[in-house]
Amino acid sequence: MNGKLIVFEGVEGCGKTTQISRSRDWLLTSGIQESLGDFGNQTPVIVTREPGGTSLGSALRQLLLEGQALQIEDRAELLLYAADRAQHVEEFIKPLLEQGAIVLCDRYTDSTIAYQGYGRGLELKLIEQLNQIATGGLEGDLTIWLDVDVEIGLHRARVRGKADRMEQAELSFHQRVQAGFSELASLYPERIVRIDASQNEEAVQLEIREILCQRFG
Amino acid sequence: MNGKLIVFEGVEGCGKTTQISRSRDWLLTSGIQESLGDFGNQTPVIVTREPGGTSLGSALRQLLLEGQALQIEDRAELLLYAADRAQHVEEFIKPLLEQGAIVLCDRYTDSTIAYQGYGRGLELKLIEQLNQIATGGLEGDLTIWLDVDVEIGLHRARVRGKADRMEQAELSFHQRVQAGFSELASLYPERIVRIDASQNEEAVQLEIREILCQRFG
Repeated sequence: MNGKLIVFEGVEGCGKTTQISRSRDWLLTSGIQESLGDFGNQTPVIVTREPGGTSLGSALRQLLLEGQALQIEDRAELLLYAADRAQHVEEFIKPLLEQGAIVLCDRYTDSTIAYQGYGRGLELKLIEQLNQIATGGLEGDLTIWLDVDVEIGLHRARVRGKADRMEQAELSFHQRVQAGFSELASLYPERIVRIDASQNEEAVQLEIREILCQRFG
Repeated sequence: MNGKLIVFEGVEGCGKTTQISRSRDWLLTSGIQESLGDFGNQTPVIVTREPGGTSLGSALRQLLLEGQALQIEDRAELLLYAADRAQHVEEFIKPLLEQGAIVLCDRYTDSTIAYQGYGRGLELKLIEQLNQIATGGLEGDLTIWLDVDVEIGLHRARVRGKADRMEQAELSFHQRVQAGFSELASLYPERIVRIDASQNEEAVQLEIREILCQRFG
């Protein structure tokens, strides 16, 4: 793989969408993509997300996030996320990385561990097996964890509009998810970088740029 | 589990749908359900299928069988079947078996091994892992394999109407699937019973009744 896979993780309302979009704009104009990607200042910077980065994924995303009426069982949910990821990696991410692109991905394997493992209490070993099956071993080159207090994040998400299935889950669920991200960050300090996302948008963005420069500049 | 899970397997056009429906009708009137289930002659006999036995499953069935435009990757397909199965087992099959019902299921774990393993060439060990995850270890009490020549079966399926995604796959694919069922039947002779489904409908049905009487009568 010649490109770079940069993953953004965090609880609801941590600011992923905004920060990914701003990071993309900055990467395209800053000149740092010349050292990151294969194409110099023509290196494509692609934003994608899980669940939902492919046509299949967008159908699955709808089932997963809007499908309260379906009462999806825990293990079925886990397998649907894995299916979405397998399709996303094979159809979308891998070909882009092979072309040398920079891929910014909103959620990846750590979210499954945090939400389904720490949040829902499904066996971590099982989730790791499924992550391995789904990704075929493709890891992010860098994972940016936007760490924000769960209550602040949920408040932001609610102000933003209608809460989806995940956002409606109880507070203690989101706190377990948060603990999961925290545990992962301490397990994989080389791959996962924590940013204090309770800061304002501009401050968070500046920290992200600094990390990208340090790692790839 | 007090009930019985009876699975029907075979290639396209082997006659599963017809035979399941006739077996159900016979079970309800023959008196054999008195020895099979928990409720004497009130024992419920339930017909279901994979993919598609639940609300989630029916959405997934549509994606899987009608989703040519989605170009589903092999591993994603495998994970979707597993998700469908996990939901089906937890939401539908297990509660019925716990109540002592007789469940007749159109396809189960062997189909995944035959189609995705032997047919598509995905790693058998991986499929067995996923079957285990999806079923939580719940096996069929009896699997009836309706064995028919692939060309006869496909011809029947085409006469019946519009071919779905699986039916449209090339002949050699279906022959590998057939070889898979055959291998499974020799690996698990206690669980899987082969019936020659090139016979007429009546003769096949009589053999099924005989097996049900032998096993559970």
